Amino acid sequence: MSRRQPTLGVLGGGQLARMLALAAAPLGVRTLVVDSAADACAAQVAPLLVADWRDYEALARFAERVDVITFDFENVPAATAEWLAARAPVFPNPRALAVAQDRLEEKNLFHAIGLATPAFAAVASREDLAQALTTIGVPAILKTRRLGYDGKGQFRIRSAADAEAAWTALGPQAGAHGLVLEAFVAFERELSVLAARGRDGRFVTWPLTQNWHDDGILAVSLAPASHSEALQQQATAHARALAERLDYVGVFALELFVDQGHLLGNEMAPRVHNSGHWTIEGAVTSQFENHVRAVLGLPLGDTAARGRSLMFNWIGELPLATPVLTVPDAHWHDYGKSARPGRKVGHATVCAADAVVLSARVQAIAAALGCAAQVTAALQALDARR
Amino acid sequence: MSRRQPTLGVLGGGQLARMLALAAAPLGVRTLVVDSAADACAAQVAPLLVADWRDYEALARFAERVDVITFDFENVPAATAEWLAARAPVFPNPRALAVAQDRLEEKNLFHAIGLATPAFAAVASREDLAQALTTIGVPAILKTRRLGYDGKGQFRIRSAADAEAAWTALGPQAGAHGLVLEAFVAFERELSVLAARGRDGRFVTWPLTQNWHDDGILAVSLAPASHSEALQQQATAHARALAERLDYVGVFALELFVDQGHLLGNEMAPRVHNSGHWTIEGAVTSQFENHVRAVLGLPLGDTAARGRSLMFNWIGELPLATPVLTVPDAHWHDYGKSARPGRKVGHATVCAADAVVLSARVQAIAAALGCAAQVTAALQALDARR
Repeated sequence: MSRRQPTLGVLGGGQLARMLALAAAPLGVRTLVVDSAADACAAQVAPLLVADWRDYEALARFAERVDVITFDFENVPAATAEWLAARAPVFPNPRALAVAQDRLEEKNLFHAIGLATPAFAAVASREDLAQALTTIGVPAILKTRRLGYDGKGQFRIRSAADAEAAWTALGPQAGAHGLVLEAFVAFERELSVLAARGRDGRFVTWPLTQNWHDDGILAVSLAPASHSEALQQQATAHARALAERLDYVGVFALELFVDQGHLLGNEMAPRVHNSGHWTIEGAVTSQFENHVRAVLGLPLGDTAARGRSLMFNWIGELPLATPVLTVPDAHWHDYGKSARPGRKVGHATVCAADAVVLSARVQAIAAALGCAAQVTAALQALDARR
Repeated sequence: MSRRQPTLGVLGGGQLARMLALAAAPLGVRTLVVDSAADACAAQVAPLLVADWRDYEALARFAERVDVITFDFENVPAATAEWLAARAPVFPNPRALAVAQDRLEEKNLFHAIGLATPAFAAVASREDLAQALTTIGVPAILKTRRLGYDGKGQFRIRSAADAEAAWTALGPQAGAHGLVLEAFVAFERELSVLAARGRDGRFVTWPLTQNWHDDGILAVSLAPASHSEALQQQATAHARALAERLDYVGVFALELFVDQGHLLGNEMAPRVHNSGHWTIEGAVTSQFENHVRAVLGLPLGDTAARGRSLMFNWIGELPLATPVLTVPDAHWHDYGKSARPGRKVGHATVCAADAVVLSARVQAIAAALGCAAQVTAALQALDARR
């Protein structure tokens, strides 16, 4: 007797697709990945269709083989997402994807739902930039409206004298994608709220995560972040408003700054997110499992944290695994990628029932790997919570 | 820059191989499965080589592509295991596999390490059976020495009058495999101890698991089992002695009866085991991850239980998933197999911090699925522990 298993189609075959496939399998869900690279790391755990985002012949075959389509990669062209949406259910919907792809639309949406942001202005020309610098002041950051991630497509303007260099670096992209100048906020903390919304509109969030970046790339996450109940409620309300406004289905991350005790919206990632990797072991249901559940129309799982978790992100190359494997409740994640500067190649999540034990475990690992600097600020935050 | 990931070869492509592959991926370990069935369920998450156990040309290609070989299926012919062991490291070693494949050798080993068993006698002829029944008495169970699992190859003898029927059923196998007559023990409880031994000889056990069978097939496991510290220590000592005697590497299960408060050895499964599936969510490190770690020579992970767990085994066909997905800390495992009477098609593990909450969650699921009878005895055992 045969039984039909649903197939989840994933656009992009990186580590997010890989971890989605690993979470999908126990649910009886097959995964089919499409990526232009034949060695995409998700292909180690799921079938891969090698195709470009504009190879509509291949995309048509892909759409025929899957029950629902989602994203590992947020910069899939909106045209591709829309073309696919005419052939299979696509979650999140292409409009939500398009908004999250555009820093200007995103900020306008944040304002529309009552979420403040750092001051910003659209920049289409050298003159716009000069004008915006007058209004916003320095320091500020010039960013491409589209296709930026992990600190890419950004130029920090420390004084008015940097304007010319910023324009030289990013001006050529002003025509194609547009730019936006953002005030640089000397925020106290960076937080993210991971949220999931089901096809039935049910909405959940995980406990707030505190994040530390290095060179624009996530270095460490700590969860649950130390915060007042009020911050969690505000963040959840903003995430819910965003999700409802966009009729969003699936998991997303809303990145926030805490500035003088208030939340500011930084950006939204319309997919499972690096700052939610701790949920694999640190929460009752992981972001990956809940994303699969959401897009397939299954009930969402409990998002409670099991204790406290700290995630080390491994950038460029993997450190030795042994110091992580020998610490209790420390979990190794090798994405099966080759080493390359700036590339996310893996992470480790360390869990414990309380902050004291977590701190000791993190320190033991950091000492053994010689990466104490990576976790200094997080350990201070953890210490402050005791 | 390229980096070589190790590849784990698995003989057999069922749900155990599937869950091994899912546990191997985060460790950066690739999996290659060999199975004679092209639709083996592990092939949904790992590459599959379709080959028979005696297709040495295919097995040679398999051995060339992997770094270490292990088993999803304990009845791989010993000759195949030995042939492969000459070409790649095989863990557990073929001798350990051979002992565990033979009920008579297994019982002799149990006695050699000081683990009592129900009375037994080898049976090679009708006359042997008559003689053994005189010595052992009734009720007793006639079993094939080899190739038995999940209640297969067994005949229960309730009175001397059943001897002829037992011989008719199993006598034809006496020549090829041999038979063994075992006393039927009216045990109080069935327990299993899951154990792992590393390539460096390091040895760990998970907390004892209590099991309930239905028609010879595991129906429910509860962990940690209610037991005295003394029973855990005895079971661990027996498992350690077995592992050291066999120079065993990897995870195995030692199934035990509790008879008048004493442990009796029932059988040993030389692989990850159904009664250890609860460890995926219910223990800090799962049996699957520790098996991968062990056979690859990585350090073993912590085996502590996170709380209390109960596993429902799904036999024949899957029930509805929704009643499980809607209960907090309840986890669904669909093996991606088609339905067939007596076939293991999935399981669900329900976890909680304490017995009261676990009992309520299990009852909610059992009521929704109409399978209260499956968990009645386990709920009584859970209730008795409060």
